[in-house]
Amino acid sequence: MRIAILLFDRFTALDAVGPYEVLSRLPDTETVFVGQRTGPVRNEGGSLALVAEATLADVARPDIVVVPGGPGQSAHMSDGPVHQWLRAVDATSAWTTSVCTGSLILAAAGLLTGRRAASHWLALDQLPTLGAYPTGERVVVDGKYVTAAGVSSGIDMALTLAGHIAGDEVAQTIQLGTEYDPRPAYDAGAPDKAPDEVVSALRARSRFVLRGEA
Amino acid sequence: MRIAILLFDRFTALDAVGPYEVLSRLPDTETVFVGQRTGPVRNEGGSLALVAEATLADVARPDIVVVPGGPGQSAHMSDGPVHQWLRAVDATSAWTTSVCTGSLILAAAGLLTGRRAASHWLALDQLPTLGAYPTGERVVVDGKYVTAAGVSSGIDMALTLAGHIAGDEVAQTIQLGTEYDPRPAYDAGAPDKAPDEVVSALRARSRFVLRGEA
Repeated sequence: MRIAILLFDRFTALDAVGPYEVLSRLPDTETVFVGQRTGPVRNEGGSLALVAEATLADVARPDIVVVPGGPGQSAHMSDGPVHQWLRAVDATSAWTTSVCTGSLILAAAGLLTGRRAASHWLALDQLPTLGAYPTGERVVVDGKYVTAAGVSSGIDMALTLAGHIAGDEVAQTIQLGTEYDPRPAYDAGAPDKAPDEVVSALRARSRFVLRGEA
Repeated sequence: MRIAILLFDRFTALDAVGPYEVLSRLPDTETVFVGQRTGPVRNEGGSLALVAEATLADVARPDIVVVPGGPGQSAHMSDGPVHQWLRAVDATSAWTTSVCTGSLILAAAGLLTGRRAASHWLALDQLPTLGAYPTGERVVVDGKYVTAAGVSSGIDMALTLAGHIAGDEVAQTIQLGTEYDPRPAYDAGAPDKAPDEVVSALRARSRFVLRGEA
């Protein structure tokens, strides 16, 4: 089974590496980071670079496609090489997935039309104009399309997907191997849980948070 | 504030990127991935490469040091450039931290002597011979030493540390921004929660799991 994880400039690192750490532990799996060019691809902050090992043209028929989000998402909302690649690989993929604002890219490419989808909570309101139905769920499975909410939710998405692909015992083995027994020091990870002032501050900065604009 | 995240061959990707995603969102922070050489450093599976932007010699006085774990940890258990660098930066660091078997490296470098520490659950029994007191806790704060359990626990470690450094509201803002409201599909992330057969299978393979040995 071949897993392709898309990289683009100013992606969010954990969006890509969370699912990677889970899915790459599935048996008989090969994972490849793919970009428009091979070589280092910098994240939103610029201080992290992950290496794209293959170009879009190199990866024609992955079984699983993972599209991360991040401020760089806004550069991939119109037709171009990334959309063309996504539509081509989606034609034969077993699973087409996204994390965070990666679902906006999938939707803009026409792949989530009429489907339920997740996204970063600050970006959910952009899904309807792209043809998808937003949900507040952390992981949404609609047919072969599996979309996750913001950043860290890619780990939950991948663990859910691991169970669908390889069964509960394999997924539980991956969970125990990565000691994924989360205990956040705070209970502020969703807008209905965080203090009002924290939610308001992020909403006020949402363009910055989502697109890295000042 | 300068954060240095150590990279070495065959590190576990999420050990490094989980804390990165949280800590790099702290205000007025600069994060650098540091290695024995600059350039791509491959993870345990070999299909992921993160770029080390600086050498050990380049990063003399970071405020926070993060040491990930992974099978490559076993190559850093005796004195050498990595231990020498860790001892040198620890002399002036505000926080010295680890994820997963990274605590074995810190302990082997003599930095956890007499301290309580966490590690991957399969590696806890190695801490006493290295002078540290193992605990089954997910995140252990002992003075300026903050150690985390396996792989995914680095996110919890970093969120705890963010609160200590910048206060609850900043930490909650990071939690909400990364939508860290975990909902694993299974409840098998700790040895006292996972099915017996899953625990036994991983224990039987522990040398493979921890060191990548067949």
